[in-house]
Amino acid sequence: MSRLTAIYRIRSDARTIDERARSLAVEQSVEMPVEAIDDPGVREDIVGRVEHIADLGDGVFEARIALAVATTGAEPGQLLNMLYGNSSIHEDVTLWDAELPDELLRAFPGPNRGLDGLRQRVGAAGRAMTCSALKPQGLPPEKLAAIALRMAEGGIDFIKDDHGLADQAYSPFARRVAAVAAALRRTGRTTCYLPSVTGNLEQMRAQVAQAQEEGVDFVLVTPMIAGLANFQALVRGFPRMGFMTHPAMAGASRIAPPLLLGKLFRLTGSDATVFPNHGGRFGYSPATCKALAEACRRPCAGRRPAAPVPAGGMTADRVDEMLSFYGRDTMLLIGGGLLQAGERLAEAAAAFTRRVAEAGPQ
Amino acid sequence: MSRLTAIYRIRSDARTIDERARSLAVEQSVEMPVEAIDDPGVREDIVGRVEHIADLGDGVFEARIALAVATTGAEPGQLLNMLYGNSSIHEDVTLWDAELPDELLRAFPGPNRGLDGLRQRVGAAGRAMTCSALKPQGLPPEKLAAIALRMAEGGIDFIKDDHGLADQAYSPFARRVAAVAAALRRTGRTTCYLPSVTGNLEQMRAQVAQAQEEGVDFVLVTPMIAGLANFQALVRGFPRMGFMTHPAMAGASRIAPPLLLGKLFRLTGSDATVFPNHGGRFGYSPATCKALAEACRRPCAGRRPAAPVPAGGMTADRVDEMLSFYGRDTMLLIGGGLLQAGERLAEAAAAFTRRVAEAGPQ
Repeated sequence: MSRLTAIYRIRSDARTIDERARSLAVEQSVEMPVEAIDDPGVREDIVGRVEHIADLGDGVFEARIALAVATTGAEPGQLLNMLYGNSSIHEDVTLWDAELPDELLRAFPGPNRGLDGLRQRVGAAGRAMTCSALKPQGLPPEKLAAIALRMAEGGIDFIKDDHGLADQAYSPFARRVAAVAAALRRTGRTTCYLPSVTGNLEQMRAQVAQAQEEGVDFVLVTPMIAGLANFQALVRGFPRMGFMTHPAMAGASRIAPPLLLGKLFRLTGSDATVFPNHGGRFGYSPATCKALAEACRRPCAGRRPAAPVPAGGMTADRVDEMLSFYGRDTMLLIGGGLLQAGERLAEAAAAFTRRVAEAGPQ
Repeated sequence: MSRLTAIYRIRSDARTIDERARSLAVEQSVEMPVEAIDDPGVREDIVGRVEHIADLGDGVFEARIALAVATTGAEPGQLLNMLYGNSSIHEDVTLWDAELPDELLRAFPGPNRGLDGLRQRVGAAGRAMTCSALKPQGLPPEKLAAIALRMAEGGIDFIKDDHGLADQAYSPFARRVAAVAAALRRTGRTTCYLPSVTGNLEQMRAQVAQAQEEGVDFVLVTPMIAGLANFQALVRGFPRMGFMTHPAMAGASRIAPPLLLGKLFRLTGSDATVFPNHGGRFGYSPATCKALAEACRRPCAGRRPAAPVPAGGMTADRVDEMLSFYGRDTMLLIGGGLLQAGERLAEAAAAFTRRVAEAGPQ
């Protein structure tokens, strides 16, 4: 029976790491004493196997554990459960990476539109893309639409809802989408609006359908709140729709961000994955950010690449540095940093987009 | 506009805690520079407010932050997003508790059956309840049914699927449920089987409906994989069904377990919440376990109490100690510890249930 490889980083000492890795392999597979299993097929095919342990120094070890593909049921929620369900409760273990065989990858068709689809959508040939966020929540739809209008005038490619915008009384989803979409249509520009889709799967489907009726063709989802399986079901149910993902509830490094926000979000259908850039309000290191961007873009069983979207307290004066770090296959997101311009929002947006355009091919 | 109170524990120093708490209040509300917000309504009603900061010693502070109820959209996924979405990515912050006003609680009807419903279901008047788990995964339905039969013969009240059992080729959900339910029916006992329901909301609904056709009236769900909003939709959609919850993907203390596995799971519909008991394979402290059990059972806006289900490497020789710690309004779960008995499973189960019965009222 075929196996996937889950890669964990474990804080341990050299004396106990073998035993710790073995107990992790059991926890993430049969979750019971192996000696009490009398079925030879289960012992052979299902019990997790420690394949390799490497001492990374400083009391950290990397363990490669082979888990049976069959246990995942070829379903994203159950895949996460098998990779990290119980072990997420153990302080000493981080889920670092997962190598999935082609047989399992077939269950994960990846992005509907991908990096190229995003670029075509806004006519951003040969350059990085730009993005901003509608905030603050609490504003009525008309005021958010007015902000979107000024961002569009400044040439922003993608305007996403703040991930805090949901289906609230002060800004109901349907009214907000109608108002923002109408404002952007009037500009005649290719600006793409991504409303934030929330709630249970049924509510999310209804919202995507409403958005589609307004001509919207990209939306924002938070997979760790929606549940990975529901996110994937939404993506598959709307094959012409594009999906940007937000990292809320992704936790602090319990699952390595390149795996979760990069590989897994892309496999389940993210076209563009927002993550906290290094040097902003969050603690991701440059190495984490680089690995995350690579997980979005490197060849993966023919799946479309996703756009990495570094964000989280970015400003226009970091554009050159970010482009030289990420390259042009990237979407730069500046939210609060533009909104700070107040009445001069359109000018601030224009300065941002001009800077990206002038940077040209990397 | 009414407010809820989110309570965070922050690692900080005394010099910077005021500023850190303020930035947390902004992150979890408007997520942009407050000085750039020109709408007085948003500044007054929506921006998070630091209400109190307490120095807990050892570089840990507790901050009480008032967030606008309106931002939650009265929806469990968005509530989690507002409580902790972005801040889950910050290493220095734990979401410790949340105080929700009645206005918001109305959106969360809580358990369908509750502690009393569980007790009535299995005729466990005046004593704690017992539970075990069908394992290992990899076994075909018939073998799992044979294990369930022996557990039932030993008098176990509740037999849950291992949370690793999903809808896998070697044990498809429908066949497993039919086999186990049939085996238990033949015993003539009140034993209650809880199959593990997985996948996206649509798949979970189909599975619950299949289970219902087999006469099953309780199921197991993992809300942090399903998504809280989907879990709640499932509970509301099957008002006669009971729901046990599993803590997989609940993470290691990023959200205090009494809040997540106790209060929030109960509010969204958990009748019985499985959690790692202290002194087992996981790191919860006695104080955490006690607080979690209290969050399940204490009066809460008229919601039914849920049963705390301490588990995770428990053995029958801890029964007396656990009952004196938790009291009888508890369900004790021993999984692997019973299965270790192999051929003598029924006897081991009987020894466990006898011990609980003899402990009598606490």
